[in-house]
Amino acid sequence: MRISELSARSGVPIPRIKYYIREGLVPRAQPTADDPGGYGDDHLHRVRLIRAMVTIGGMSIATARTVLTELDSPTPEVPVVLGQAMLGINARSDDAPSENRARAARVVDDLVAARGWNLAEDEPARDALITAVETMLDTGHADLLGHLDVYAEAADRIADADMASVATTDSAAAIVEKAVLGTVLGEIFIGSLRRLAHSDRARRRFWPGEGDDAEQ
Amino acid sequence: MRISELSARSGVPIPRIKYYIREGLVPRAQPTADDPGGYGDDHLHRVRLIRAMVTIGGMSIATARTVLTELDSPTPEVPVVLGQAMLGINARSDDAPSENRARAARVVDDLVAARGWNLAEDEPARDALITAVETMLDTGHADLLGHLDVYAEAADRIADADMASVATTDSAAAIVEKAVLGTVLGEIFIGSLRRLAHSDRARRRFWPGEGDDAEQ
Repeated sequence: MRISELSARSGVPIPRIKYYIREGLVPRAQPTADDPGGYGDDHLHRVRLIRAMVTIGGMSIATARTVLTELDSPTPEVPVVLGQAMLGINARSDDAPSENRARAARVVDDLVAARGWNLAEDEPARDALITAVETMLDTGHADLLGHLDVYAEAADRIADADMASVATTDSAAAIVEKAVLGTVLGEIFIGSLRRLAHSDRARRRFWPGEGDDAEQ
Repeated sequence: MRISELSARSGVPIPRIKYYIREGLVPRAQPTADDPGGYGDDHLHRVRLIRAMVTIGGMSIATARTVLTELDSPTPEVPVVLGQAMLGINARSDDAPSENRARAARVVDDLVAARGWNLAEDEPARDALITAVETMLDTGHADLLGHLDVYAEAADRIADADMASVATTDSAAAIVEKAVLGTVLGEIFIGSLRRLAHSDRARRRFWPGEGDDAEQ
C-alpha cells in the first residue's frame, strides 16, 4: 500500500509516519512492481503499536525505541520491556523533598508490606506514589490517605486480571506486545473509568433527577 | 516568612513561585515591620496546592487558574470545578478515527449501560476511554477487552470511597479543594499502585525466589 493508505488505515498523519521512519521505529517501504507503495501489514501493525505507546500512552520516542528493539529480538525479555514501559510513562517532579517526605515513605512502605508485594529497590512507581502521598500530607489532607487501601485492593484485582490475560497467549513476541499495550492502555482504562464513576456520583448527588429522562 | 523559606517549606523552587505570582495564581507578599518577607501560611498552602495540581498532577496553568478562581469565590461550585479538574488532566490525541472507532464506542456505551452510570453527553473521560479501546482493537488485542469489567468494578469501588471522604468535610471551599486533590492525586495513586502490583506479579513469575531473603 501507499503511505496515504497506511495513514488512513492507522489514523496517524503522514508527517508523523515519516518521522517514525526517520527515527528508525518503522522499517522503510519495500516497493515492488506489484506494490509500488511498498508498505505492508507489518508496517500498519507497527505504526498502530507506536501510536498506542507514544500518542495515546504518552511514552517517549526513546523508550518506545527500546521497547521495539526488544520486541524485534529473537528472544524478547518480558520483564525488561515491562520495566522500560513503566519507566517511560510518568514524568516525575524534581522538586526538593518536603518535610513530609519521610512520613510519606513510611506510609508507602507499610502499604507494600501489608500487601506482601515483592518489589525491586528502585521501583519508579514507588517514588511516584510517595510523591503523591507527600503532596496530600503537604496540603493538609492526611484524612484522604485513609482509603489508600481501597486503591491498593483495586490495583491487586486489576493486576491479577492483566496477568491472567498475558498468560494465555503463545509466542514470546506476542506476550511482550500484550504486556506493553496492557500497561500503557490499562492506565487510560482505569483513569478514565474512575473519572466516569466520579461523574456519575457527582451528578447523582448534585443534580438528582437530571438525565433520567429525555427532559427534566 | 521570606520567599526562600516559602521555597524550602513547599519544595517549590523560587523562580517557579515567582512565576505563579506573576500569573496571578499566588497573591503577592504583604511585608510588615514584624514580617519583612511578607509571605504567610496562606501563601504556603496555596503554593502547595498549585504544586499538587500542576507539577504532580500535570494540570495546565490555565486550568489551575480556573480551579483556584472557583475556590476563591464565596460559593465555590463543586461540580464545575470537578469538571474543570477532569478536563485539564489528559491531553488527548487529535488523530483521525480508525475503522474501529464505531465498535469501540459501542463497547464503551455497553459498559456504561451495564454499570448504570448517569453521564453527561460530552464527558472527556468517555472519549479517552473510547480511544484506548479503539487502539486496543487497532493493534489486534481485542481479547484484552475481556477484563474491562474488572477495571470498571475497581473504578466503582474507588469512586465510592472518594465520594465518602468528600462528604465528611465541612466548608464548601474545603470540599472543593478535597475534590480537586482527590481527582488529581487519586489518578497517581491508582496508576502507581497498579504498576507496583504488576511488578510484584512479574517478579513472582519470572524471578521466583528473588527478594524473599537478603541474598538469592
